[in-house]
Amino acid sequence: ELLVLTYGALVAQLCKDYEKDEDVNTCLDRMGYGIGVRLIDDFLARSAVKKCHSYSETADVIAQVAFKMYLGVTPSVSCSSAAGNEFSLILDKNPLVDFVEELPAERASLCYCNLLCGVIRGALEMVHLAAEVTFLQDRLKGDAVTEIGITFLRKAED
Amino acid sequence: ELLVLTYGALVAQLCKDYEKDEDVNTCLDRMGYGIGVRLIDDFLARSAVKKCHSYSETADVIAQVAFKMYLGVTPSVSCSSAAGNEFSLILDKNPLVDFVEELPAERASLCYCNLLCGVIRGALEMVHLAAEVTFLQDRLKGDAVTEIGITFLRKAED
Repeated sequence: ELLVLTYGALVAQLCKDYEKDEDVNTCLDRMGYGIGVRLIDDFLARSAVKKCHSYSETADVIAQVAFKMYLGVTPSVSCSSAAGNEFSLILDKNPLVDFVEELPAERASLCYCNLLCGVIRGALEMVHLAAEVTFLQDRLKGDAVTEIGITFLRKAED
Repeated sequence: ELLVLTYGALVAQLCKDYEKDEDVNTCLDRMGYGIGVRLIDDFLARSAVKKCHSYSETADVIAQVAFKMYLGVTPSVSCSSAAGNEFSLILDKNPLVDFVEELPAERASLCYCNLLCGVIRGALEMVHLAAEVTFLQDRLKGDAVTEIGITFLRKAED
């Protein structure tokens, strides 16, 4: 809960700093990237996860090990492209929004949890995987679930 | 670690927003207050702590139950006034600064963890205890330990 409330304070501060939702979203993503780049070491050390051999395995590790470890929830994973490089993490419950009822009308385009996208992107980059990570659905915006889309951009080199 | 890094992002953002360390400290304390006011319900529900009958008992609960629950560490407690209303929480290790080497020279007056003071103050106020909470020593500033001082301001009414 301390994380949830601290995160809320961070988002509130950014909303004070930036008028446009897009700027807040960008800032959260960028901050998340910086966090992911540093968090990956902690994750690899504590999880003792081995090298993944496919995008699908990587997506499963993110959902079942990383989300569980840091947020206490396990999203379900689905592959959403024939090419096998696009995945969705689907969250029935998003602990980061526990204290958020709904977005205020003037913040309708805010991706409240956009930090998470940056974290995933930054962490993946540190294991040599380039990816685009974005919110596809968000319960805060009235969607039935919260869905994070991960698109792997190219094969890992090593 | 996600909390630690998210907190770091928050402090970094405030340092961008405010030139003066004092303004960052005030802002962190104010944010912490808002968090403490909301966190207390979670704490009382999860800890099942009973009503405290003395300031000393209250200080022990903060150190042994609350710090343990939210930060995973247990500060030692010492009473520092004959009147029995001033206490010190002494932390050998402060998990919130795990990724901070030292404060940059231009931020020498920053109370990096000042949010914690606000959290304690806000939470205490919700159980009808007025207190002043400040950092007395800080390892980030070269002190041997990190010490948070709590001064209870008047007897609880109920």
